[in-house]
Formats: sequence, structure tokens, C-alpha cells
Amino acid sequence: MSFIEKLKNAWVSNNSLLCIGLDPDTEKFPDLFKTMAKPEAVFAFNKAIIDATHDLVCAYKPQIAYFSAEAAETSLEQTIAYIKTQYPHIPVILDAKRGDIGSTAQKYAAEAFERYQADAVTVNPYLGLDSITPFTAYRERGTILLCRTSNSGAADLQDLSVDGIPLYQKVAITARDHWNSHNNCLLVVGATWPEQMAAIRQLVGDMPFLVPGVGAQGGDVNAMVKAGKTADGNGLIISSSRAVLYASNGDDFAQAARAVALSLRQQINVARA
Amino acid sequence: MSFIEKLKNAWVSNNSLLCIGLDPDTEKFPDLFKTMAKPEAVFAFNKAIIDATHDLVCAYKPQIAYFSAEAAETSLEQTIAYIKTQYPHIPVILDAKRGDIGSTAQKYAAEAFERYQADAVTVNPYLGLDSITPFTAYRERGTILLCRTSNSGAADLQDLSVDGIPLYQKVAITARDHWNSHNNCLLVVGATWPEQMAAIRQLVGDMPFLVPGVGAQGGDVNAMVKAGKTADGNGLIISSSRAVLYASNGDDFAQAARAVALSLRQQINVARA
Repeated sequence: MSFIEKLKNAWVSNNSLLCIGLDPDTEKFPDLFKTMAKPEAVFAFNKAIIDATHDLVCAYKPQIAYFSAEAAETSLEQTIAYIKTQYPHIPVILDAKRGDIGSTAQKYAAEAFERYQADAVTVNPYLGLDSITPFTAYRERGTILLCRTSNSGAADLQDLSVDGIPLYQKVAITARDHWNSHNNCLLVVGATWPEQMAAIRQLVGDMPFLVPGVGAQGGDVNAMVKAGKTADGNGLIISSSRAVLYASNGDDFAQAARAVALSLRQQINVARA
Repeated sequence: MSFIEKLKNAWVSNNSLLCIGLDPDTEKFPDLFKTMAKPEAVFAFNKAIIDATHDLVCAYKPQIAYFSAEAAETSLEQTIAYIKTQYPHIPVILDAKRGDIGSTAQKYAAEAFERYQADAVTVNPYLGLDSITPFTAYRERGTILLCRTSNSGAADLQDLSVDGIPLYQKVAITARDHWNSHNNCLLVVGATWPEQMAAIRQLVGDMPFLVPGVGAQGGDVNAMVKAGKTADGNGLIISSSRAVLYASNGDDFAQAARAVALSLRQQINVARA
């Protein structure tokens, strides 16, 4: 089953557009993890979060930087393998924002899709078509291209005017017309700017969006969902990380994470009703 | 000593603008490595190349994708530690092309500068200032921003016209005026388009360029050096990977790599004389 099909099934079966971003920051872990070695703690924390939320999400999104900084690649392998074994209907998006020339991009695609067995990966489009093709060549996997990100610096380049439209819209149009020949591209569109999301939705039809920036990054769920949903009320993978993961730093962290995830799913479902 | 100072010293002491890109592709290794486990072979191969060329280069540039795809992070740690122990005057550039929002970029900066102890790292500028600051905050290290890359797809976005100039020139100007407050930014400028390199040199003064695409990627050394050198005949880190690493797949691979490196250094030195 392709990533897109798996995603669509998870939207329905869990009645959820919510994705939980797995950004395991050991400094924010509850005390009960402090006695473990870091890589061991990272997997144990992720496992607890996943077990507490697997019926509430349409995807998990591990952020590879949090693993790489701690030399915890093994924990990332374990985390993804755990989801695939225990909850195989939930797709895994590796948030890596890779981007390089073709021969190197092949190695990054192998990292994401063969080593880690991710269902999809985020990719930076600045190097253009031949940097993207090695990812989209994995036809059953998803390639999620940065379009308009949620951070303040995004405006530096992404909002520059190109042929009378902002660069991020040019990226959306190029993805639609030139980079998506296998129908396995998606776009990253930040939650903080609903009017920009609405403009991108106009351009790309039903292409799904990965939407980071909900929760700790302060996106307005209601405006964002209305701006980005497709006609059938889906089309979004709305990712929250810190607000869920670190809802409590006590022994109840997993239940607290579940409560936040339930609330976010509900807010999203009200907004898309 | 800062990365830039270390680089300037290596330009002089080895009379070289040549950088060797360490892209260890185990499938291209000589037969004598075939009996080793892959991570062990990767380090042994790199070590042989480094020992054979350390007096001919101004930098080494390991490409992290080749290590990540093989689960060979330990080999990357060993490779960089080996250079720093044996040849501490040669700076190490980690080619990783990272780019993410601030809190995640901090983790990527920790990966490059703390875990791997690289002297500099390549960064993708698509997310703007707050994605770059976590790298430049390491004032003694170098942040090498993608500007105009050497691949065919680069034109998709980098050549788009913004305010009457191509986007890659806008990146160069923004790097010069807004991203380089600690004077530790450099630019990636591909070797395949000398006229673009000359235009960027005009814009950014003496800011050094990392120039991939020499050798296997077919850049014309003479035109490129004349287009990119600074007034003192330096200013360039000219990187060659496959043409050096895989000059021979026999037992003489290290001597063959040295011969190619000698030839490239000489071509570059003739062109900048």
C-alpha cells in the first residue's frame, strides 16, 4: 500500500488529521528516564508516547535531528520499527529536510526509505528536480517538499516575489507541474499563516499538506483547518510535537500527552466539520 | 583558531585550494576492502586517502549521506577524529546541507559541531535567518550556505528572477548583509557556471566559496578559478570527490588518488597564478 493510501486510511480509521512529532529532547524528559542511558531513554520515551496515542493520530513524525545530536540512530530505528510492528496502519514520516545533488540524494533516499523504512520523508526543494527525483523514485513512499514554513525567517526567501507571485507559490506550482510525476509529493505548509495556506490549496488541488507549528508554535487551529482542508474535509497532516510530548514532566506524562492529543484532534475535527 | 583562519593557513601551508570530498561509496571500493564489515571498510578507505593526500589539500569534506545510508556514523566520527589528531591544521567541512526551524537547527548544529567536531558545515538557506543563526552562533566554526549549486535542477528555483536578479544572487546579498554578523559565513557556488560565480564574487567581496563539481562533475578548472578567486589568489575551496577517491580500484588506489590530487592542485595553481 502506498504512503498516500495508508494516510487516507488512517485519516478515516482514527478520525484524525493529527500527527505527533517525535522530537525527543532528553533534557525535557520526566525524571523516571534520568537513570537510563540516553539512547535507551529516547526509545522508551517514544514507545510510551506512541502506546498512549496510536488511536488518535494519522501519522507519527520523528525529527531526525533530535536523534542525530544524541548519537541515537539506533533509537530512531527502534522507534520506527516499533510503530511498524505494533501499529502498522499508522504511517511514519521522517522529518529530515534533506536536499542534495542526485548521487548524494540517492544516499539520503536510502537513509530514509531503506535504512529507517520511513513511509515518507521531508525534502528541501532548493536544489530542484534532480535533487527530488531520487526520493520520488520510491513510488510507494511519500516525498514532502518544503513550501512555506512556519518560522519567522521563512520570509527571507520564501516570500520573495517571482513572476508576480511569492516564491513559495512558485514551489507549489512547480511541485504540481514538474516534480510530482508519480503522484507521491506532498507539501510542508506552516500553520501560522492561514491565508498563505489557502492560496496554496487553490493551486494544488487535493495534494496533502504536512502542517507543523500547532501547539507550542502557536498556530490557530480553526483558521488553519478551514484554510487548508480539502473538499472532503481531509488533506492535512497537522503535526504537534512539544505541546504533546512535554504536556507533563511527571510520571503521568503519557496520559497527559494523550489528553493533549485528544483535545487537538477534537479541535481539528470541530474546525473541519 | 577559527575555521576561516585555519582555512587561510592551510591555503598557504599546502599551497592549495583543493579540498577532497570524502564520499565513501563501498560499491566502488577496491577489492581489498571487500572482506571487511562496511563501517570498518569506510574508515579504512578514508584513512588511506587522507594519509596519501594530507599535504595537498586545504580541507576535507566528508559527505554525511554516504555514512548515514550505511549506518556508518561511527566511521564518520573516526574519520574526523583521525584528521584532527593526525593533521590538525587541515579543517574539516561536514557536507550535510541541513536546514530547519530554530529549535531543530540547534540540534543539527550540535550534530555537526559537538558530536562530529566539524570545523564547518553546509546549510540550506531556504528557511531563512532563524534557521541559520543556530549554526553561526558557533563563532569559531564556519557556516557554508548553499547559493548556486552545480546540478541541472538548480535552475528550477535558484535562477528565478527576484527584484531583477536571480534568486541565488539574492541569497548571496542576504548572506552578506543579514546572515553574516559573526563573519563566519561562506557560500556554496558550483563549478559548472563560471559567469555566475564571477557575479557572486562581485557581490560578496572576499567571502570564501566552497566549489563542488570539479572532476567527475566536469567543471572547467581554469575558467572557474579565474571567475572565483579573490584579489590575493585565494578565496576558493575547490572540492573533488569521485575523481580522486576512485582514480583506481586496484591496490594502488591511494597512490592514484594522490596523483589526481597533485594534478588538480597544479591545474588550480596555474589558473590562479
